Amino acid sequence: MNCPMCIKWKEEPKMRIAELKYCYLMLNQDQFFPGYSLLFTKEHITETFYLKRAARGGVVEELNRVAEVLFKIFEPAKINYELLGNMVPHMHWHIVPRFTTDSCWPNSIWSKPHKEVMLSSEEYKERIELIREGL
Amino acid sequence: MNCPMCIKWKEEPKMRIAELKYCYLMLNQDQFFPGYSLLFTKEHITETFYLKRAARGGVVEELNRVAEVLFKIFEPAKINYELLGNMVPHMHWHIVPRFTTDSCWPNSIWSKPHKEVMLSSEEYKERIELIREGL
Repeated sequence: MNCPMCIKWKEEPKMRIAELKYCYLMLNQDQFFPGYSLLFTKEHITETFYLKRAARGGVVEELNRVAEVLFKIFEPAKINYELLGNMVPHMHWHIVPRFTTDSCWPNSIWSKPHKEVMLSSEEYKERIELIREGL
Repeated sequence: MNCPMCIKWKEEPKMRIAELKYCYLMLNQDQFFPGYSLLFTKEHITETFYLKRAARGGVVEELNRVAEVLFKIFEPAKINYELLGNMVPHMHWHIVPRFTTDSCWPNSIWSKPHKEVMLSSEEYKERIELIREGL
């Protein structure tokens, strides 16, 4: 199987935030939206209804926990939660703090292109540590 | 409070699919993406972490149920699940069957504009009945 999400945790150690029970949590490399994180199942699963009920509940509690932590740290106007998977079907949630000052607001993050914001290694570390401590 | 989601069930009887335990389910009027439905909480809540755990689990089971039904009926390539709320914070899930033939594929439904697809009253009724029967 040639799934980028199945190898992401292994391949991008610098973006790792935490290993949870059902999912891995990683920082999105592009931090145009500060705090933008990716929560993806350890198991290669594509739709919510392919998960067993307990696992589905578990994933959602993890999603919720992350959203709450991002909300407290970054103080956005809203959290956006998106499970798309058209290109990479392996279940991965985009958890995106949204600010009234971001150039896409109040539309979706996909509504217009933006220039990627890359941080320095030190800045990634700090941001990741901040989120990790909140969990 | 001036929330369009709080009055949507009452205001748009023709788009009603079902009243569930935690949410109302309605067909999205624009059917450019066939089966596109909206699932929104009865309660005016904005983020997942403002729901009690049991209610959050309940909403997710309803979301999952609807997704599975849409998947069976419309046979899309993927279901997209989105909880945004930047304009209307009252929790409403966009549940969108996605097809490799739709003009936005494989990008998000917000990636480019499309012309709205309105159905006849009879077609809305049929589509709604089809989904309702599947629930």
